[in-house]
Amino acid sequence: MQDVLKRPDIPACLRICAGTDGSITQLLEVLTGKSVKVETISQSVVKASPRIAGLLDIEPGDDVNDRLVTLKVDDIVYVLAKSLAPISRIPGGIRDDLMRADIPIGRILREHKLETRRDILNIRIVHRDFFGELPVLSREYKIIYENKVLMWINECFPVDGRWGK
Amino acid sequence: MQDVLKRPDIPACLRICAGTDGSITQLLEVLTGKSVKVETISQSVVKASPRIAGLLDIEPGDDVNDRLVTLKVDDIVYVLAKSLAPISRIPGGIRDDLMRADIPIGRILREHKLETRRDILNIRIVHRDFFGELPVLSREYKIIYENKVLMWINECFPVDGRWGK
Repeated sequence: MQDVLKRPDIPACLRICAGTDGSITQLLEVLTGKSVKVETISQSVVKASPRIAGLLDIEPGDDVNDRLVTLKVDDIVYVLAKSLAPISRIPGGIRDDLMRADIPIGRILREHKLETRRDILNIRIVHRDFFGELPVLSREYKIIYENKVLMWINECFPVDGRWGK
Repeated sequence: MQDVLKRPDIPACLRICAGTDGSITQLLEVLTGKSVKVETISQSVVKASPRIAGLLDIEPGDDVNDRLVTLKVDDIVYVLAKSLAPISRIPGGIRDDLMRADIPIGRILREHKLETRRDILNIRIVHRDFFGELPVLSREYKIIYENKVLMWINECFPVDGRWGK
């Protein structure tokens, strides 16, 4: 287990949310007892830079869906999530859902009955201007589908009392 | 979301563990900061009864691996888990691991890089002699692999202070 997930100064519910290999939206809804709302900050199709191509195991210049959203409950931001998905790997039936920005990814995978796995790459404490002076727990992971990277995701969680104690 | 997961008298960390569609072992290890130990109560290969055949979508009489284990941290039982897996559907490479009783299922799936999904069937409060007079949160779910039931699982969680508040 990553050392950061053992830190007693990080609320247990946040450590659990950051450590799961399942849907984060689902855990947030259980934690708060309410529906999670996805709000888009930006969404566009970009050409993969060499760095992005490396993350996704595609060719530089390939089309990638680049999405930045927040997950909110009652106007409180719990997660800032950036995702990169190679357009050509998104199964036709879920492309519209995945490129719309207002449906949580876990829910899309579940509703379309996709079999996947999530490989957590790293978890660490970072700074993000979005959250001001708060410490931020960041994790990167890949969603793997048919042995290829369907999506690279970076989730950032503000570390404070919104997660309980 | 199932109503039982909204009950404020159930500790938040337990509600989250019971609501995940990811690995429960991983969440337990994050919650406690320690390794989870699997202890076998029983393991045997049985012929599917009509009821079991229905759960697994197989023929009555087919061979099924029937396993009952506890997940413990520091000798405290967090989960009593029963699983049923049709032998013919277990991929050859993981059969030995799955039929040995001392490796958590989530870890086996992860190490063998299986792409799966978990469909939660129900979550409710029950009684189990194993936990004496404590209320018990029980959930049933299926692990789906290649569009078939790889495993039916019933996990029982004692509802008390071991999960925090």
